[in-house]
Amino acid sequence: MGKVYLVGAGPGAPDLLTLRAARLLAGADVVFYDALVHPQTVALAVKARRVLVGKRAGRLSTEQRFINRALVEAGLRHHTVVRLKGGDPMLFGRAQEEIDALRTAGVECEVVPGVTAALTAAASIKTSLTRRGVARSVTFATPRVAPGAEDSDWIDAATNADTAILYMAASNAAQVTTALLAAGRAPDTPVVVVENASLPDERQLRTTLRSLPDIAHQSLTGPTLVCIGAVFATPAEASANSIAPNAFGTQAAS
Amino acid sequence: MGKVYLVGAGPGAPDLLTLRAARLLAGADVVFYDALVHPQTVALAVKARRVLVGKRAGRLSTEQRFINRALVEAGLRHHTVVRLKGGDPMLFGRAQEEIDALRTAGVECEVVPGVTAALTAAASIKTSLTRRGVARSVTFATPRVAPGAEDSDWIDAATNADTAILYMAASNAAQVTTALLAAGRAPDTPVVVVENASLPDERQLRTTLRSLPDIAHQSLTGPTLVCIGAVFATPAEASANSIAPNAFGTQAAS
Repeated sequence: MGKVYLVGAGPGAPDLLTLRAARLLAGADVVFYDALVHPQTVALAVKARRVLVGKRAGRLSTEQRFINRALVEAGLRHHTVVRLKGGDPMLFGRAQEEIDALRTAGVECEVVPGVTAALTAAASIKTSLTRRGVARSVTFATPRVAPGAEDSDWIDAATNADTAILYMAASNAAQVTTALLAAGRAPDTPVVVVENASLPDERQLRTTLRSLPDIAHQSLTGPTLVCIGAVFATPAEASANSIAPNAFGTQAAS
Repeated sequence: MGKVYLVGAGPGAPDLLTLRAARLLAGADVVFYDALVHPQTVALAVKARRVLVGKRAGRLSTEQRFINRALVEAGLRHHTVVRLKGGDPMLFGRAQEEIDALRTAGVECEVVPGVTAALTAAASIKTSLTRRGVARSVTFATPRVAPGAEDSDWIDAATNADTAILYMAASNAAQVTTALLAAGRAPDTPVVVVENASLPDERQLRTTLRSLPDIAHQSLTGPTLVCIGAVFATPAEASANSIAPNAFGTQAAS
């Protein structure tokens, strides 16, 4: 019997992987990876059988219960099994279902943290998510805006934190804006939208909460973060708020 | 003129550094590092002048304005300057003051994200900070409990998110509990306290919000996170809530 490692692959750029993750990949017998994990990262698993179990919003995906079962079976048969997840495993990754399945089956499991997309977006736009006198709290949330959704807790969370980073929110920008304005967040709250953080095709858009729905005119196909709060209006960048929503700046990752 | 890199050193364990950070350290001419950065990580800067500008709660620390000035001067004189910060630079790291000082001086600056302590603690206790049907939002906050503190926003942020992770809160556990209970957080909300996440002397304590002040009996000298929310009561661990507060479990990092 072996061990299953749930490993954060980081936000996209292959060199934002941790040294521990790289070492585990090099020694892995089997690797299960999401569609968003960079091919160069998967390629580090030189001797492993590599299995795509991609989950990607709106596209064909492997069912979670299949993934759970495959991880358990691999853990029973192989020495080192790596489950590579985009970003960090413990944020919006459904890792708990995999951990619980492994625990139930008696398969040893360990989690290796990774760099999450929100902190990568903050690095790209050189804006600290907290700042003395401006922001002592930051919330990461996923909005739920489907008709009839009974869960509106994300609105309270995103309204009461000084800084709010919304994952998987760009496709529902209009509903997000409506909900946050209704909850009392100021219309002129600075917003930065970051798509494909850390990748060569990263894009950044500066706007305000009021104008956030305008991003619907962009074709945002990569993972996108909506970053909301006073910290995003830095002195040097205050004038950038007047940039038209379609003036997306492109910044190459280093 | 060179470039200053603000680099996340990760939570403590040297192999939770990113590949990019390791590469930058290897080529650095000067490295400024915090006291919490692991010596093995600093040692990766084989050819650099290494300057401790440690900041550590309650101990001697270098003034921020001195650090800002030193970064600017090094950036004007050297090719590659690395400012190593524990965890991720953009969370509770006063990075903005350094970025703004560099920008004002016209010194090029880049931020390299790192693994933050909260996600490392979540990995150690194998508990996802978000979970379908349980938690769609997580807040990271630092409490401000000094007498006369006018800023109580952290209480709203920590109360309204499904999951709350408090940095630098352990020494004020009693005040934190009082504030969160008064704001409506349930007394039996599960809590896990994690000290020195990812290091060999990591310690974990399971308790509840009501009993959180009991951690004052522990001598928590390392960086400590207070993790609050329903996600921390996993089925397999529910019985652990009955463990006495002084029954700290010790878990070696892998």
